[in-house]
Amino acid sequence: MKLVLIRHGQSEWNKKNLFTGWEDVELSEQGIEEAKHAGQLIKNENISFDHAFTSVLKRAVHTLNFVLQESDQDWLPVTKHWRLNERHYGALQGLNKAETAAKYGDEKVHQWRRSYDVLPPLMEVSDEHHPTHDRRYANVDQRVLPGGENLKVTLERVLPYWSDAISPALLRGENVVVAAHGNSLRALIKYLDNISDADIMEVEIPTGTPLVYELADDLTVVSKHYLK
Amino acid sequence: MKLVLIRHGQSEWNKKNLFTGWEDVELSEQGIEEAKHAGQLIKNENISFDHAFTSVLKRAVHTLNFVLQESDQDWLPVTKHWRLNERHYGALQGLNKAETAAKYGDEKVHQWRRSYDVLPPLMEVSDEHHPTHDRRYANVDQRVLPGGENLKVTLERVLPYWSDAISPALLRGENVVVAAHGNSLRALIKYLDNISDADIMEVEIPTGTPLVYELADDLTVVSKHYLK
Repeated sequence: MKLVLIRHGQSEWNKKNLFTGWEDVELSEQGIEEAKHAGQLIKNENISFDHAFTSVLKRAVHTLNFVLQESDQDWLPVTKHWRLNERHYGALQGLNKAETAAKYGDEKVHQWRRSYDVLPPLMEVSDEHHPTHDRRYANVDQRVLPGGENLKVTLERVLPYWSDAISPALLRGENVVVAAHGNSLRALIKYLDNISDADIMEVEIPTGTPLVYELADDLTVVSKHYLK
Repeated sequence: MKLVLIRHGQSEWNKKNLFTGWEDVELSEQGIEEAKHAGQLIKNENISFDHAFTSVLKRAVHTLNFVLQESDQDWLPVTKHWRLNERHYGALQGLNKAETAAKYGDEKVHQWRRSYDVLPPLMEVSDEHHPTHDRRYANVDQRVLPGGENLKVTLERVLPYWSDAISPALLRGENVVVAAHGNSLRALIKYLDNISDADIMEVEIPTGTPLVYELADDLTVVSKHYLK
């Protein structure tokens, strides 16, 4: 079985160097081109999927739409789930990364960005941007909706979705594509490749570049490579 | 509850005056603009959906994608199903409508296009365009896949999807959008508005124009209007 992971292309806020997290921002023009290119790479390799998964954030949804369009698989079943969302960046969401570094110091910002288990400053539940006020999460127990996450917490909410939705499709023998985000994909890669807490933060996943896993029947990794 | 029906915008084959049916053709530039406009109309009316349904044909899928994008509801769950496909036009698919009229006579073609229960010439199962050879229908019992349909047969395969998937969402109190095709939507409209076999073929559904049904708790129609 094939599992293909695709990180969304550049977003408008990546371009502006803002902390994004769960803020629902558009792909930039470059991001759209990256997504289409990812679809072309899938098409060139003749990879046929059976099921597609993505987050409930439009930069990932649109990336998947372009991938399916370019590879002529628009008809595929798609499941969108909040557990595949980007890491929630807490009170940092919407702030400029350089300004934040100037205010809190480089070391603190580096720690928030690069440590496995240090939490960013949390977003208050009263903040209008907190997920509890967003209609798309209305059917989720509000106590599990984050106001800020590190990679450890991100991984703990991504993995149940791996076990309950993604891996069952693979175990049925299906080929699966997941279009998601830097940190929700890091969580999957850490799990699949058994990467240590210390090493995973150094793993950089290029945007719009399909990462193809060939998996054995028990879902252990046979091989992996990026499509170029 | 609100049920909004949207017929896909102009396709490349509508433009060329070809019988399309289950052939999976792209929206034309005009069709894309129509789809975006439909999304703007939904946005202007502040209509929030809970679930979206479409066919497995890209002209309907893309129309839905544009509607969700323009109305900022990309995160909505979308279900794609072959039962919402356009009427299968049998052996006429891919033929020019004017040439077909020249060959078979205007009256015959008018009958194929406008009678409720006259079947078009069927597509052979051996034809490479027959749905049994298409991967997207591999999980469907091949005996139910059509080689040609009239509106009566189309309605008989659309209505089970209404009962089993669309109406349950409405009965849960959800607002639903269905992006589909001239004849699969005619089937739903015939059922909802209790239109006679003779009258339904005269009902023209404009492309890219949301048709809003307000439904009572028992799904009887309270009112309907097109967004303009």
